[in-house]
Amino acid sequence: MTSPYDTGLAKTEANYQPLTPTSFLARSARVYPDHTAIVHGNQRFSYTEFYARSRKLASALAARGISKGDTVSVMLANTPPMLEAHYGVPMTGGVLNTMNTRLDARIIAFTLSHAETKVLIVDREYSALVAEALAMMDGDRPFVIDYDDPEFAQSGPLIGATEYEEFIASGDENFAWKVPEDEWDAISLNYTSGTTGNPKGVVYHHRGAYLLGQGNAITASMAKHPVYLWTLPMFHCNGWCFPWTMSVIGGTHICLRQVRAKAIWDALADHRVTHLCGAPIVMSTILGAPDEDKRTLDHVVEFFTAAAPPPEATLAAMADAGFNVTHLYGLTESYGPAVVNDWSAAWDELPASERAAKKARQGVPYAALDDLTVMDPETMLRVPADGETLGEVMMRGNVVMKGYLKNPTASDEAFRGGWFHTGDLGVLHADGYIQLKDRSKDIIISGGENISSIEVEDTLYKHPAVSACAVVAKADDKWGETPCAFIELKSGQSVTSDDVIEFCRQHMARFKVPRHVVFTELPKTSTGKIQKFKLRDMANDA
Amino acid sequence: MTSPYDTGLAKTEANYQPLTPTSFLARSARVYPDHTAIVHGNQRFSYTEFYARSRKLASALAARGISKGDTVSVMLANTPPMLEAHYGVPMTGGVLNTMNTRLDARIIAFTLSHAETKVLIVDREYSALVAEALAMMDGDRPFVIDYDDPEFAQSGPLIGATEYEEFIASGDENFAWKVPEDEWDAISLNYTSGTTGNPKGVVYHHRGAYLLGQGNAITASMAKHPVYLWTLPMFHCNGWCFPWTMSVIGGTHICLRQVRAKAIWDALADHRVTHLCGAPIVMSTILGAPDEDKRTLDHVVEFFTAAAPPPEATLAAMADAGFNVTHLYGLTESYGPAVVNDWSAAWDELPASERAAKKARQGVPYAALDDLTVMDPETMLRVPADGETLGEVMMRGNVVMKGYLKNPTASDEAFRGGWFHTGDLGVLHADGYIQLKDRSKDIIISGGENISSIEVEDTLYKHPAVSACAVVAKADDKWGETPCAFIELKSGQSVTSDDVIEFCRQHMARFKVPRHVVFTELPKTSTGKIQKFKLRDMANDA
Repeated sequence: MTSPYDTGLAKTEANYQPLTPTSFLARSARVYPDHTAIVHGNQRFSYTEFYARSRKLASALAARGISKGDTVSVMLANTPPMLEAHYGVPMTGGVLNTMNTRLDARIIAFTLSHAETKVLIVDREYSALVAEALAMMDGDRPFVIDYDDPEFAQSGPLIGATEYEEFIASGDENFAWKVPEDEWDAISLNYTSGTTGNPKGVVYHHRGAYLLGQGNAITASMAKHPVYLWTLPMFHCNGWCFPWTMSVIGGTHICLRQVRAKAIWDALADHRVTHLCGAPIVMSTILGAPDEDKRTLDHVVEFFTAAAPPPEATLAAMADAGFNVTHLYGLTESYGPAVVNDWSAAWDELPASERAAKKARQGVPYAALDDLTVMDPETMLRVPADGETLGEVMMRGNVVMKGYLKNPTASDEAFRGGWFHTGDLGVLHADGYIQLKDRSKDIIISGGENISSIEVEDTLYKHPAVSACAVVAKADDKWGETPCAFIELKSGQSVTSDDVIEFCRQHMARFKVPRHVVFTELPKTSTGKIQKFKLRDMANDA
Repeated sequence: MTSPYDTGLAKTEANYQPLTPTSFLARSARVYPDHTAIVHGNQRFSYTEFYARSRKLASALAARGISKGDTVSVMLANTPPMLEAHYGVPMTGGVLNTMNTRLDARIIAFTLSHAETKVLIVDREYSALVAEALAMMDGDRPFVIDYDDPEFAQSGPLIGATEYEEFIASGDENFAWKVPEDEWDAISLNYTSGTTGNPKGVVYHHRGAYLLGQGNAITASMAKHPVYLWTLPMFHCNGWCFPWTMSVIGGTHICLRQVRAKAIWDALADHRVTHLCGAPIVMSTILGAPDEDKRTLDHVVEFFTAAAPPPEATLAAMADAGFNVTHLYGLTESYGPAVVNDWSAAWDELPASERAAKKARQGVPYAALDDLTVMDPETMLRVPADGETLGEVMMRGNVVMKGYLKNPTASDEAFRGGWFHTGDLGVLHADGYIQLKDRSKDIIISGGENISSIEVEDTLYKHPAVSACAVVAKADDKWGETPCAFIELKSGQSVTSDDVIEFCRQHMARFKVPRHVVFTELPKTSTGKIQKFKLRDMANDA
């Protein structure tokens, strides 16, 4: 039997529009035209200007041939062009690829080739490195645009065909950008280090970016006109989607090139920052500032942290300093944070150690994430909610990536059984909160950056004196974790820790280099598998 | 040339879920299980209970055969079953039709027939009226369920096959409800009085209900755990989607059967209400309370009003009484409010009269509404943003209805040119805010209820003494507007105002009956068209 709702109620232009976060900026430019959208040193851009500059960027990119499905890569610090790229690139139908500025030339070259980058915008601070990468890359070279930050004197070479301000000056501030044909269309591309082989390109879509953009505002209870400080690199998961969130509620972006204590404290006080995000290392930086750099705050600042549970002492110190810390969890594959340690007022009454234990749990899904649970990855059955049974953390919902670019095998594997397999091991508590217990992949998170232990091991194995090696995380007060290398030397060989560290520096990005090197026989199972859990204990005892 | 984003990135269960507001309740039950979701007199339901009861309702409805595209109508006050119906019905795939409790039996009968209602839930207060309607209706009678409110003693007849608590007791609290197959599926049906002929059935979809549900929280800057007082009837546009909004942020619903001053003040103070909505009449009720019924509030209460601009004196009095008033605008066709008078802090500095003038403007689109403008409906060109040129207010976006049920002609007309034609006349100000100037349709809004002047005229024309008539709005301090009838009598006939009013009472719902009747020759144009604008002046001068 047909229902009366089956006919005559089709989609039209009047009642259906693809979801896209670019619409947030258009609205803020209409509703808050004179409100300050961006502060960068002495620069100020109103929402009118932010929108106009983004449209000029889109117009200029379109004139260069960028359209649906074309990649625009950027190697930028947290500066105005980075924010403009989050709108200007999608307005063309193009896909924004924000590159980690700490990577080495080889991986940058791989990324540019793999992403089939058509246009590349490079901050002068990174131009020498990028020039090296361009020389290495396979495939067509992108059209390169330099960004010469007026707020930051630099001496790096100009390597592009034009400079950013000149480029956008050629664009039309009334450019008639369109919403995507389909909200499922790609909006951005974020490479994740993964554990083996080359980085994987995580593709986001407009729908997910819209929903997580709004989701942040709801999860963070953000009222209109927040002031957001950019301590989190925007190259991480599109800054956890906060470049889009701010436009939902007419917020002000306070740009920050470098995570330095004095600059943070000054911004907090001078701009009355209401929100900021970062790995635990950012909290350490804030708390560790010399007293003369600290400022007195007359308002509570909301701090969102992820990557590792905030330690009890840090939480207490942050509270004393005027911050309210919320613990989030997510992955590049979930647009950044999609899980929140939603705090119950009742927990305020607990003793500090129990409060910290509650705070250490990763939590519950954002409203934008449909489900979050812990499963046995073999059977795909949910583990009991007993806080003890270990399983793999699984997610599903509209804020899970489209998939990995040009890697259907990895995508299929990640989505096996209709759930996104996070690769993180955890438990499900009786109250529905999840908590991570270990990572099933060999990832070390140092200062908020993922380091693949396998990548480091691959490098170590290239050293002529190394017979066998294993790299694990060592707990670190400042960085959260640092890589610790255990090495068995070849018979008759002799080498120092410094030699090994220097060797690594020549072959990988600096933040990945082991801080500690231990020469020892590696503990192995009867079948010869290295027992990493024993090494972790040894690393932390060392 | 194909883009690398064109392949291998399809939708899966892991990364795509249809948007539906029912997911908000499932999440709140997980995250805030013990938080109070509903207060109704002495009744309290936690989120665990609210979710369980909604699932039991869904389960029991499914057992009665309700599935995708089946209409469940309800004739309920603002009580727990009304909230449960907003989740339980969509969980079956069914469509919720909330009926205006102030309508007469003839229109109720029409609605039940037109909606092809399968199940009907009736509060005992309205059972005699509904029994009358059931006797009149065409087509199959629905399965009827009585709701006998334990908090409100009533004597109306029990007319159903079962009572609500008994009915849901037969359901399974673990009912495996599913998200809709498609987020475009219908979720609810709201009849609007329209201007001519029978009411039109406005169909909402899950996508729009999700987006406006979230949109309210964002627009209203609602933090977690608001306390919402139900002064607005939930039968109006699904309570402007607030039944769904509250579950986004774990809010508490304070039910209210009747808009009475003492009950409102008691709720505001006793439950620390943070938000409420209503037509200007609700503000008048609050402010007009006897001093002994008023309570002292130690917090600011957010009041959202729509239907008519809040008058200057009312705004000042509301501010003195501790309320912050926000002016919203929308129609049944836009899920309730989709436009907000987004208040700029700079306007706080203006003199009171200028502030009131700013506040009187309807405003700017919600982020969930893609666009809002004023156009010449003939040319479909935007009027200049000069605050003077009159045109028709037009909307487009995901929070515009699917269309009118079984009325493709009316749907096509409403969506002509790819925009929803509101039927309201207005201007566009230089700052992008719209302001209504008149209604192109002949609607009188009295106490927040729409009255079709044409429907009243149709009734008047049935009176044997009436030769010609016209009904217009007369401004009213309490009700906003009331209908005022102008009548030319047939030659030799004699009749009094009271006769006419009594005749109307017998033929239409009480709130539609003219308050004033004027016997006069009707002003007409040279072509014989009645000049209503002259009558409006006469009505207000009378």
